[in-house]
Amino acid sequence: MAKFGLLFTTLLAIAIAIKAESDPHDFFSQRLGQSMLRTMLDNGMATDNSAVPADELNPNFWRKSANDEIQKRLADKLNTNKAKNVIFFLGDGMSLSTITAARILKGQRQGNPGEESQLSFEKFPYTGLSRTYCTNAQVADSACTSTAYLTGVKTNILSLGVGPNVNYNDCEASMDPANDLTSLYDWAQAAGKSTGFITTTTLTHASPTGGYAHVSNRMWECDTDVRTYLQDSYTSDCKDIATQLITEEPGRKLDFIMGGGAGKFLPKTMIDPFGNPGERSDGKNLLSEWQRRHPGGLFVSSRKQMEAINLEQTTSVMGIFQSKLMNFHQHATESEPTLSEMTETGIKFLSKDDDGFFIFIEGGLIDYGNHYNKPGLSLDETLEFERAIELARNLTDPEDTLIVVTADHAHPLSISGYPERGNNILDVNEIGFDTNGVHYATLNYAAGPEQYLDESGNRIELKGQFGSPDFIFPSYISSDSGVHSGDDVGVFASGPWEHLFRGVLQQNTLPHLMAYAACIGDGAKSCD
Amino acid sequence: MAKFGLLFTTLLAIAIAIKAESDPHDFFSQRLGQSMLRTMLDNGMATDNSAVPADELNPNFWRKSANDEIQKRLADKLNTNKAKNVIFFLGDGMSLSTITAARILKGQRQGNPGEESQLSFEKFPYTGLSRTYCTNAQVADSACTSTAYLTGVKTNILSLGVGPNVNYNDCEASMDPANDLTSLYDWAQAAGKSTGFITTTTLTHASPTGGYAHVSNRMWECDTDVRTYLQDSYTSDCKDIATQLITEEPGRKLDFIMGGGAGKFLPKTMIDPFGNPGERSDGKNLLSEWQRRHPGGLFVSSRKQMEAINLEQTTSVMGIFQSKLMNFHQHATESEPTLSEMTETGIKFLSKDDDGFFIFIEGGLIDYGNHYNKPGLSLDETLEFERAIELARNLTDPEDTLIVVTADHAHPLSISGYPERGNNILDVNEIGFDTNGVHYATLNYAAGPEQYLDESGNRIELKGQFGSPDFIFPSYISSDSGVHSGDDVGVFASGPWEHLFRGVLQQNTLPHLMAYAACIGDGAKSCD
Repeated sequence: MAKFGLLFTTLLAIAIAIKAESDPHDFFSQRLGQSMLRTMLDNGMATDNSAVPADELNPNFWRKSANDEIQKRLADKLNTNKAKNVIFFLGDGMSLSTITAARILKGQRQGNPGEESQLSFEKFPYTGLSRTYCTNAQVADSACTSTAYLTGVKTNILSLGVGPNVNYNDCEASMDPANDLTSLYDWAQAAGKSTGFITTTTLTHASPTGGYAHVSNRMWECDTDVRTYLQDSYTSDCKDIATQLITEEPGRKLDFIMGGGAGKFLPKTMIDPFGNPGERSDGKNLLSEWQRRHPGGLFVSSRKQMEAINLEQTTSVMGIFQSKLMNFHQHATESEPTLSEMTETGIKFLSKDDDGFFIFIEGGLIDYGNHYNKPGLSLDETLEFERAIELARNLTDPEDTLIVVTADHAHPLSISGYPERGNNILDVNEIGFDTNGVHYATLNYAAGPEQYLDESGNRIELKGQFGSPDFIFPSYISSDSGVHSGDDVGVFASGPWEHLFRGVLQQNTLPHLMAYAACIGDGAKSCD
Repeated sequence: MAKFGLLFTTLLAIAIAIKAESDPHDFFSQRLGQSMLRTMLDNGMATDNSAVPADELNPNFWRKSANDEIQKRLADKLNTNKAKNVIFFLGDGMSLSTITAARILKGQRQGNPGEESQLSFEKFPYTGLSRTYCTNAQVADSACTSTAYLTGVKTNILSLGVGPNVNYNDCEASMDPANDLTSLYDWAQAAGKSTGFITTTTLTHASPTGGYAHVSNRMWECDTDVRTYLQDSYTSDCKDIATQLITEEPGRKLDFIMGGGAGKFLPKTMIDPFGNPGERSDGKNLLSEWQRRHPGGLFVSSRKQMEAINLEQTTSVMGIFQSKLMNFHQHATESEPTLSEMTETGIKFLSKDDDGFFIFIEGGLIDYGNHYNKPGLSLDETLEFERAIELARNLTDPEDTLIVVTADHAHPLSISGYPERGNNILDVNEIGFDTNGVHYATLNYAAGPEQYLDESGNRIELKGQFGSPDFIFPSYISSDSGVHSGDDVGVFASGPWEHLFRGVLQQNTLPHLMAYAACIGDGAKSCD
């Protein structure tokens, strides 16, 4: 690979003077004598084929693989069966750039260049693009999007299960049943199906919650939080998310729930299974309440306990594996099940129902990895997410089980420059330099905690510093954490009525399409 | 909107100390007392609904629009007609983030919030995602991608119309007919169809060229360029791109060609119609050569001349409207036709052929706008591109004309933070601030010429400075121009066999799908 020294820096110093209006495709600018791109060219770009797999060098390889794609599409039969089961996978903050980068990482972990790899859900036959904006936000959060993709109604940022007619932090309007939005959970339950959700965040976190809670502030996770946000206007009529999950429909009718966040269900005076005190001020123990309401149900708090569940004899399952968020897959303790393990347990449990099931499964820490600007974590979470999807597809029959995969919103993660084939996706772009001759990372974020600038505002060299999955990648805007982005996210579908999941869609269309396929809900149904 | 002063800055100074590991969803962090996100919340996020269209406040609006989407999909008939005509639209560098941002700009120009708007090709019923990497590059350029989407074979970065077995800048291998890749132009011509291309760049620029030239260096646009790159090893056997267009197949058989770049066709001793000298060293006048080879053909160099073409009587058309690139749509002279106008002329001209036609139409300056970090231009180019597509769809019949829209590669343009609904997409994020309390732009690039840092490396306030469409938006990495990015791009299809254009595709699959639909080429065909 290229080695650079003083000469390079000197040559580039000349280039700095010329800004923007030279032709970026002019690889041998007469004005510069030697442009930066030309320097890149001389030092590996286009001339190094060493990473290219041998079969790809033959044009017929590409013709054959294209023909395979045609034949695969021609062989796809229109699947207009009723979807007995629906499995809805949500990669929180899984932007399309996250998917591409995760695909490359998957291949690289297998010892290949990486770009040619494929995630399990990328094999799904139908794809769409989902428009994620919320009624009052150009760029969405995970609450309003959850409301959109679980209830079918776009709403205000930070709102869950209530429409855009309810204002932020308005308790009275939130608690008015007239403002409740029904969701895929309700629709499936009304049709006699089993229902559940799994998340790697907390049970009261935004993504699963848009379908079971009705609050105009996602932060109302337990009564203590409601008090914090409502201050003097707090009353116990203002039901927090945890309380709604355990005591109201459709939450209390869910058959299978797994994730983190024990604290929101236990009083401050109690210690949870993980050694931490609860967070509730009202003294309520909602885990006991859940057990009281589910006499044949089983509460588990470790992987071992989860593995020991007698799925046949248990009538409902609640699993909580951490006080707050579950750990990143990379950092998980032995007692935390993986998303794949929870997925396998959930699908096997819910498959007992002859009327079918609906389950929502969230890879919730993809978003956290991106917020922390740690693609070493967010991409790893994406790979665990795609494993769970592969498992779900293998455990079920595409003839009667619809699987839909999407994200709630994007993150401004980019894969930049002209790195060579096989370039380590979690390191610097080996042939990409800034105008000072400093390598830049292949992955960058628009905003986040680390700018890596010296005292003069120049970027510092990071090559060789990317060893840890916790390495914080660079960003432009200094912010205590990364932010979301507003570009569309992908939709991937397999199973009954998969062919409806295409085109550029408003995000709130997704649950209506699932309801149509499964013949549930109040709208159009495939069996009508 | 929010007004901030000393208090804000002071509060934020506290926040700077806390990095990355606080929960980015904790909108009221007890540790910070007042987090940045909480500050944003207090200053508009979630509480301001003033920009929301009234009908969107009713949940039934969203249910009805979702039902409309279901009905639209159910009404779509499988179109397995033979595609008599194929129109291939390529937005150069039109990342999915560029599409979302352009959609918002379109709505905002119409006086609406913007997010709810729709580009013409976003109505197309089928969508896919295209994987853009090249054989030796993780992130592609416009040459190897052109080869992929016009010939169906992935190749090396900077290569056009030759496979990955031909090395960069290798003349002998490039000129060996055994290494020629055939393209959609060849396949359509062999089937007796009329063919053509339109670009807003130059006729010899990478995008249209992957289908007609065979060179292992995209910079060989005229003989002078070949001499520059081959130096002592130059011989006249090394045919430049312009020469190949005029004298070799399939270039010389193209019926309709329009774009910029007269200089590559004329000797240095001649002045082109725009007052500039030609660029060729070999003394050849390839425009005369074109006229000699096309006795019934017409060469035009202005909009007026283009409008005066007698489409019925003319047997072939060549239009060149600038010495080099055409101007950005925003800056075009009166004598330059728009992409829509060229598209209308091209389709009307080629529609004369009862055997049908293939035309490639490139919005080539979307890429330049993004390279210059000027979304004021790249988004405007995208809007002119979508107008041309709308026109093409209206001028043709979906029963016999397939239209495919895609991009060659992405750009690292992000739409960041949590701007409110209706936030001016070409200005700062009104409620987004960095840790110093400085607004950030809603749109940012990973790399480019302007970092807008003060001497201490802190970002400077840009609010109020975005008036011009030529404003250079900020970027993280200092680079003389913006760079490409490696995330997948979108595919949008309408017409015969539109339903094949779905799923996650290798980019080189696209021409094979078009060939299948039109029953041309050497591979699988729908009429077999």
